[in-house]
Amino acid sequence: MTAIDRPHAAFDTVVLAGDAVRMIDQRVLPDTETYVHAVTAEEVAHAIREMVVRGAPAIGIAAALGVAIEAGRLAADARDARALAQAVGPAIERLAATRPTAVNLFWALDRMRRVLSSASGTATTLATALRTEAQAIWEEDLRMCRAMGDHGAALLAPGCRLLTHCNAGGLATAGYGTALGVVRSAWRQGRLRSVLADETRPFLQGARLTAWELQKEAIPVTVITDNMAAWMMKTGEVDAVIVGADRVAANGDAANKIGTYGLALAAHAHGLPFYVAFPTSTLDLARPTGESIPIEERPAREVTHVGDKRLVPADVPVRNPAFDVTPASLITALVTERGVVRPPFGPGLQKLLAGS
Amino acid sequence: MTAIDRPHAAFDTVVLAGDAVRMIDQRVLPDTETYVHAVTAEEVAHAIREMVVRGAPAIGIAAALGVAIEAGRLAADARDARALAQAVGPAIERLAATRPTAVNLFWALDRMRRVLSSASGTATTLATALRTEAQAIWEEDLRMCRAMGDHGAALLAPGCRLLTHCNAGGLATAGYGTALGVVRSAWRQGRLRSVLADETRPFLQGARLTAWELQKEAIPVTVITDNMAAWMMKTGEVDAVIVGADRVAANGDAANKIGTYGLALAAHAHGLPFYVAFPTSTLDLARPTGESIPIEERPAREVTHVGDKRLVPADVPVRNPAFDVTPASLITALVTERGVVRPPFGPGLQKLLAGS
Repeated sequence: MTAIDRPHAAFDTVVLAGDAVRMIDQRVLPDTETYVHAVTAEEVAHAIREMVVRGAPAIGIAAALGVAIEAGRLAADARDARALAQAVGPAIERLAATRPTAVNLFWALDRMRRVLSSASGTATTLATALRTEAQAIWEEDLRMCRAMGDHGAALLAPGCRLLTHCNAGGLATAGYGTALGVVRSAWRQGRLRSVLADETRPFLQGARLTAWELQKEAIPVTVITDNMAAWMMKTGEVDAVIVGADRVAANGDAANKIGTYGLALAAHAHGLPFYVAFPTSTLDLARPTGESIPIEERPAREVTHVGDKRLVPADVPVRNPAFDVTPASLITALVTERGVVRPPFGPGLQKLLAGS
Repeated sequence: MTAIDRPHAAFDTVVLAGDAVRMIDQRVLPDTETYVHAVTAEEVAHAIREMVVRGAPAIGIAAALGVAIEAGRLAADARDARALAQAVGPAIERLAATRPTAVNLFWALDRMRRVLSSASGTATTLATALRTEAQAIWEEDLRMCRAMGDHGAALLAPGCRLLTHCNAGGLATAGYGTALGVVRSAWRQGRLRSVLADETRPFLQGARLTAWELQKEAIPVTVITDNMAAWMMKTGEVDAVIVGADRVAANGDAANKIGTYGLALAAHAHGLPFYVAFPTSTLDLARPTGESIPIEERPAREVTHVGDKRLVPADVPVRNPAFDVTPASLITALVTERGVVRPPFGPGLQKLLAGS
């Protein structure tokens, strides 16, 4: 790999730091900027489950880095590469069991498994190879997001007012963002007027993370509650919607943060473009449509409480599906690092991948 | 007026209590059940502005009761009815300036003004007449909501799973509710299976108030975040949507809590009935469409904070329109105390009112 610049964003979402995986704690932003250092794969798995780190690409990176530090930790006690590969196996399974919807997690772990399965030589050689592969995943993500950002920005008319949901930003990736990568690129090109950020209940990724991240770069951002989005469209304050994705099926159906589907319905009703930005590692081409994508149901407490404050009376049940699936028919274009795909997405995605 | 039962709900939303207006403090529910006693019209106005009491019909009742206690307070110092009418005038103006969107406020104050303008005799006579009128508004609301509930319940198929937004309940009225009046009636008739309540950011009327109120009557309620509603429709968990209204134009366009419009778009996309329940005092027939209904923008802090907890980074702007307008074309039927109106709503509403 050639050298790559540090991401523009003035924070580390998830990076290798010696024998640790260093992650900004996204549970406590924007109040507190503090870092978690995980030194075992189990600690990384815990951080993913608890949403210290979140966002499909960032989860994949964290898991890959988790495998790398686990291998480094176990290398001294392993007879050879094969023994180390066996010792690291369970950690991969634990990391894979953290969250079910984002496909980048499985994609990144598959890449690490391929390195493991070609294990030969000393344990140290394998540990180094795993570290190199994990670091490559990180660097590729940064490159992909920058390319995606430029492809997406070209779709926008000058003076565009974007609406986004959740955080598909530097905090969801190695540092540049998918949907917010497009925002960053458009801003640098002078095409972007402003961003409306849905607060994105229950975890408030929009209010807490997107607002924080854009404010750091002085990109004009205004936060609204999720239920204001349709009205902002109606009153003419939105020119286009851009979101990320956690898993995209072969036909272009896109699983993303809960609320994306309703937003897509509203954009459609107002004739507004609805863009989904993601690296091709988010594609799940084995899945013909989004219907069978597993949707994670998260703990009730995320809905019933904000911090220590209870919002819902005790003993009243809540639902907490973390994602929904937006059908391809509501999506104007898919934005990837390899270019923009227009409907019909099935053939378009095939062609895009064949052109690599 | 004939005697009327206490509303079923085990709380007082807003009632006359001697020389005071007694209101359950809706800002601190469901944590704390505490009552505010306002003894001047200014204190009632403050309670309306601060949302101690909210909901279009309840605001109207509170304002009428506020005029009554103000008259009672000033009667001793007034030479006669005319002098008292003059003294009470500014209080009416202050109450009218509290919140701009709900039309019931102006309707109720107009009724009080009519009593004032026919002032003759002693100050005490006028004060008594005002108290009687305010109490009549309260009692009529209760009767209207019960009638509305029965009309609305007849629209629902047995086993119906309703979705509702905000709190159009006993807490928004004298005690029975508009949309939740329909829920109550349907539940008593055995037609209702369950209720999904949108939490309704930013003030969380659904999570805090609707859940609390339905739990008190053991009506099965599950809370979701607002952005889950469309997905619940998509996954087949909703049979119909019912909401209240703050102001309904002559053509049936309905202003209601922010988020209602997006919900109506989603219901329309899924072919689900979308019902709006309100007393005819919510009609603003002087307004041909909903386009010119004034939309209140509430303080930023409701969006940036929950309790003392800051959600949005300091210095990031937010929007807080408290209402939106759902066009008549997205509404299946209007439910009033006089019966159900189907499209086209213009002629239907005219006929309904003429039939009185």
